[in-house]
Amino acid sequence: MAAVKIVPRLPKGMRDFLPADMLKREYVFGIVREVFHLYGFEPLQTPILELKETLYGKYGEDAEKLIYSSQHPGGKEEVAMRYDLTVPLARVVAQYENQIKLPFKRYQLSPVFRAERPQRGRYREFFQCDADIVGISGMVADAEIISLITTALRRLGFTQFVVKINNRKLLTGMGQYSGVTDEQLPDLYRSVDKFDKIGAEGVEKELLERGIAPDAVKRMIQLITTRQEGLANLDIVEEMMGNIPTAREGLRELRELAAHLEMTSVPAQNYEFDFTMVRGLGYYTGPIFETIITEPNLGSVTGGGRYDDLIGMFRKESLPNVGTSLGIERIIDLMDILNLYPPNIVGTVVETLVTVFNEESRPAAAKLAADLRAGGVRTELYMQDRALGKQFEYANKKGIPMVAIQGPEEISAGVVKLKRLSDGSEVTVNPSAAADKVISMLR
Amino acid sequence: MAAVKIVPRLPKGMRDFLPADMLKREYVFGIVREVFHLYGFEPLQTPILELKETLYGKYGEDAEKLIYSSQHPGGKEEVAMRYDLTVPLARVVAQYENQIKLPFKRYQLSPVFRAERPQRGRYREFFQCDADIVGISGMVADAEIISLITTALRRLGFTQFVVKINNRKLLTGMGQYSGVTDEQLPDLYRSVDKFDKIGAEGVEKELLERGIAPDAVKRMIQLITTRQEGLANLDIVEEMMGNIPTAREGLRELRELAAHLEMTSVPAQNYEFDFTMVRGLGYYTGPIFETIITEPNLGSVTGGGRYDDLIGMFRKESLPNVGTSLGIERIIDLMDILNLYPPNIVGTVVETLVTVFNEESRPAAAKLAADLRAGGVRTELYMQDRALGKQFEYANKKGIPMVAIQGPEEISAGVVKLKRLSDGSEVTVNPSAAADKVISMLR
Repeated sequence: MAAVKIVPRLPKGMRDFLPADMLKREYVFGIVREVFHLYGFEPLQTPILELKETLYGKYGEDAEKLIYSSQHPGGKEEVAMRYDLTVPLARVVAQYENQIKLPFKRYQLSPVFRAERPQRGRYREFFQCDADIVGISGMVADAEIISLITTALRRLGFTQFVVKINNRKLLTGMGQYSGVTDEQLPDLYRSVDKFDKIGAEGVEKELLERGIAPDAVKRMIQLITTRQEGLANLDIVEEMMGNIPTAREGLRELRELAAHLEMTSVPAQNYEFDFTMVRGLGYYTGPIFETIITEPNLGSVTGGGRYDDLIGMFRKESLPNVGTSLGIERIIDLMDILNLYPPNIVGTVVETLVTVFNEESRPAAAKLAADLRAGGVRTELYMQDRALGKQFEYANKKGIPMVAIQGPEEISAGVVKLKRLSDGSEVTVNPSAAADKVISMLR
Repeated sequence: MAAVKIVPRLPKGMRDFLPADMLKREYVFGIVREVFHLYGFEPLQTPILELKETLYGKYGEDAEKLIYSSQHPGGKEEVAMRYDLTVPLARVVAQYENQIKLPFKRYQLSPVFRAERPQRGRYREFFQCDADIVGISGMVADAEIISLITTALRRLGFTQFVVKINNRKLLTGMGQYSGVTDEQLPDLYRSVDKFDKIGAEGVEKELLERGIAPDAVKRMIQLITTRQEGLANLDIVEEMMGNIPTAREGLRELRELAAHLEMTSVPAQNYEFDFTMVRGLGYYTGPIFETIITEPNLGSVTGGGRYDDLIGMFRKESLPNVGTSLGIERIIDLMDILNLYPPNIVGTVVETLVTVFNEESRPAAAKLAADLRAGGVRTELYMQDRALGKQFEYANKKGIPMVAIQGPEEISAGVVKLKRLSDGSEVTVNPSAAADKVISMLR
């Protein structure tokens, strides 16, 4: 091998996940997948490398700076690493339109790449977890997405959270009603998006600085800060500006959505209408949703909404589309903060260490390990030649909860001793009964 | 949205997996993961992008031509997409030596990237599936790897396969015994590696063309073509060249390995010693293994062996290491050819379609869908506004096995009708019993 050693290190913003972390990640992934399946969402996988023309069409220059392009010696295609899972979905729907039956309910749980400045909690390769419904324009689809979010979060163990719901049409209508010009709408969105951070006064100040007329700003602030329980919130703004067609359409969608949420048994305390919530991305066309962990206040864990125009990038006629992204990396971190991982998600998959008393007893140990595995027990066969005490120490250090012992006595008696390390309790059983016994002692 | 449409297409050698394919892939991944866990292998995940210095140190120029390098605007690091999972493992073991307890038994199931010329069954992004044991020099570890392979293949449904076992030290000893010089050894390996394709005569011809002496070639061919059952194969070559130290060490390892395979209950028909099997990669140092599907003869599905020097690329002292790669993409394809997927791996995850009789009955349908999901049934709520016949047609086309119906009659009677589409059988049950009933009718 090479005489000069290579320093083992990673590129900036990249992470390794050692087993203890992987077990937590896979626990979260497993629950999320299970909930997606319960709601009838199907798995999709697209490649990490896409043609540049596919990716660059949509995100805008700011995002393009963050996209990793890729090349191999002699390669002629312009390829790049995906930036999200939404554009690949739009491509797939257009590319396989004869194979895909609508509605197409798909999820994808895959890494994406963004060369952002690395910082705490922000990485350059991270998993995204998206669920979308393509082909349904009615609000029943938006309600399914919100129901999916609340069920997934509850199954993960989150109890105090709220899905904030708004509507892009309503926001546009509010702008129109207040006297904000169409050209000023993006500025308006951008400022209102900061409401959480800078508050009503901050937004007001920014809007004035952006040159929006003072009376328009005043009306806008009054509208977005309307806060009543449930549908009362909609009633109030409808009374104020029910004659603005865009606003009326947005309100109609939100009322239809609320009716479906009630039918779908989404608990009322888990959603609210919040007109200060904007969602940064430009492509939303109707309802938008964002979930906040409220107690303690830990910020946003999902974002999504309806974007009925995106598939039109790749297809003569677009198709309605509503979806959400679960902030899976954030959720994985928050589960640690809130202590939501079950106690059996420890640092190892191994449930039992089969110890080896001495080299003469190794055949019995190997046979026992095979039997335990056949019986469904996650088993490590001790592979070194050390005293039993050292083997127990190894199990303890690694967090393996049980050890199996077959010394000369046990072998001649035709039994095996099982010891649970957490409380030292021991049982002696027939080897053929060992797997079931381990399972009953552990699960 | 953009007026000019982007043609929806993929870069060369890349694939999308639509849900029907994904369900097959996830079935295979699930079984393989389960078996890894039973054997106490822990999950590891490394990033797709590595520093070029990490990747380029090892593969050689031929491989470097196939490596995708990667770049983002303003990026200063030299990064590239991983070519396999072995070099990242070696990096990880060196980088986290204080956190990793030995033996380190890890698996990784992840995509790798190679810009090879795309052809049938060969892609530029494909999954690799590796299991390795770091830190054990004894043959007990090699036996664990072979036992893992045979259990995984059996659980997937393969019955006719054999793990061919050879040893690099033995091959070197055979070369020395035959009179092949050390410099000629790589040529020797390269030619013997083609034995399956070109036969003994072909190998003989190649070795002669490479300038190896005719009597050396003759002895070599005689040695590698020795074929007896089980240990008899080892006895014969030992008798011929037991005085060559390298050969003796290789034979000792194989005998020790055989003893552990027997202890570990690996069926004798699932492995054999085959001295014509070489494994192309240069880094093996001891036993090597390759699994062939024999009936019908469908070629190789796993490859691996011991490579005790590789971690030394990144670390003052290397660590013993033995592992295997399951050819997971090939296995996924072969499962189709051999019809090994269970019948419930159909084109959809959905188990029941909840139909909607008319808009008045939608609240009952939404409630039923919520109940079925809470009861563990993978449920799709019909979202469009169409006649019941169309809804049945949709379920049939999509392959959904059951439909649930709650028309005005069922609603007023407080019941739900469940229909299994495969045989048309119907039952009427209380909504609270629907989930259990669906499960009993389907699973």
